[in-house]
Amino acid sequence: MAINLNAKGKKLEPLKFSWKPKDILLYNIGIGATELPFVYETQLKVIPTFAVVPTLPLLAASLSVVKASPMKVLHGEQTIVLKTPKLPLEAETVSEATVTDIFDKGKGALYRLHTTTKTAAGEELFDNIFSIFVRGEGGFGGEKGPEAGNNPPARDPDAVVEEATLPVQNLIYRLSGDINPLHIDPNFAKIAGFPRPILHGLCTFGFVARAVLKTFCNNDPAKLKSYEVRFRDVVYPGDTLTTSMWKEGEGRVILQAKTQDGRTVIANAAAMFSA
Amino acid sequence: MAINLNAKGKKLEPLKFSWKPKDILLYNIGIGATELPFVYETQLKVIPTFAVVPTLPLLAASLSVVKASPMKVLHGEQTIVLKTPKLPLEAETVSEATVTDIFDKGKGALYRLHTTTKTAAGEELFDNIFSIFVRGEGGFGGEKGPEAGNNPPARDPDAVVEEATLPVQNLIYRLSGDINPLHIDPNFAKIAGFPRPILHGLCTFGFVARAVLKTFCNNDPAKLKSYEVRFRDVVYPGDTLTTSMWKEGEGRVILQAKTQDGRTVIANAAAMFSA
Repeated sequence: MAINLNAKGKKLEPLKFSWKPKDILLYNIGIGATELPFVYETQLKVIPTFAVVPTLPLLAASLSVVKASPMKVLHGEQTIVLKTPKLPLEAETVSEATVTDIFDKGKGALYRLHTTTKTAAGEELFDNIFSIFVRGEGGFGGEKGPEAGNNPPARDPDAVVEEATLPVQNLIYRLSGDINPLHIDPNFAKIAGFPRPILHGLCTFGFVARAVLKTFCNNDPAKLKSYEVRFRDVVYPGDTLTTSMWKEGEGRVILQAKTQDGRTVIANAAAMFSA
Repeated sequence: MAINLNAKGKKLEPLKFSWKPKDILLYNIGIGATELPFVYETQLKVIPTFAVVPTLPLLAASLSVVKASPMKVLHGEQTIVLKTPKLPLEAETVSEATVTDIFDKGKGALYRLHTTTKTAAGEELFDNIFSIFVRGEGGFGGEKGPEAGNNPPARDPDAVVEEATLPVQNLIYRLSGDINPLHIDPNFAKIAGFPRPILHGLCTFGFVARAVLKTFCNNDPAKLKSYEVRFRDVVYPGDTLTTSMWKEGEGRVILQAKTQDGRTVIANAAAMFSA
């Protein structure tokens, strides 16, 4: 089955979503937070990578539009752009999504889904860009797309945060809505070519963002302006993540994360924050 | 403020409650389960100690009826009796509660709250007996109440299960409804006399029940008929629990749980199960 190259420019059906403080607690704990302002409702703050949660169903919907087989897709890159400093603890939202690009990467196609999320009252909250690699669907003579940026400089990182994921991190994270069996079902994981269930890329995404918040933002989520990563390799529940951070210019940090066995799992990554 | 001895025999306002499969997943993970039938919605089973969750608000309500200060009470004992072999994954329930006894323990009073839970359609699901110790409220010349039973025999246990709680076990468990600050807020814990937040007794209650399910019930929750414990000492998140089990007669096991530092945290405990 070839992918649908005409999907470029297509808008998806807008998606309604809602959340309450308990969903924020569950998400924050799901990405490994333990600090009181992230886990205790009396002083709760939303960790901004939560922005992926209310839009995730649009990613699933985009597969049908692009005609990409769920068995062939890999989550390649993820960008979030925060449009309000403080995400609400409770909201009803509407998200709109457009397939903005379909690139030809040779071994596969890479499509981008750009989503914009507002409250029901029209306040802009955040944008997402999902980049999805579709194995075996390249070679159609399309544009190659931009090269990956955000390469770390040659010097040692300015800060390093090491943190273990829990052996049950996948079980907790999936309660925020990503119930792909790849992250829990050993048989499904084997069919997909993994020795055991892998951790959600977007869970690792949250761990790395927390390292930035802790190191450069005094754990104040309002300071994070944008954050983008490339997923390079899989993380298993229980792996220890080491996030290296290079401050490059005012309010910008380049990021890379490795597992305890030295595999780079997040690369070409950066965050923008206010001082 | 003296407790209200006339509360004996009082019925509380019936309580409505409802749950969905996601609440079961969250509860099961909250008490440390990792086996697929307890954490994966495609094959999900309710761990029967969930029976405490839909009735917990009645415990809070009973404090006002008995006029027991929240700062003086300790959860002394807990009993559950299952009236249906398989608890539903989704239900709307009504629970009724009666203060059945107020005993005089000298240093304090011990009152019992007996609750009965049915589905909205009238199917009997389970009973609970909460035994609550109220410090400093004894010496009123009342009955002492029965001595604790379920003492282990002199021989070595027939089975032992050792299992670590997570350092964040309290953060997960509290999402099932017990949001007492004692289990998360370090300042509150210090005021209450503890060096740091303690794990919920009813979370430990779940861990010990899982040891029984695994050892004697082949992890089939339908086999558990009743379960009763006395809370003897506190557990801290991250503690390792060692549950010792003595099979005494057909379908009955006597239980005791200790932490890694040798403190007995659950005693005078037993479970009844079908073969």
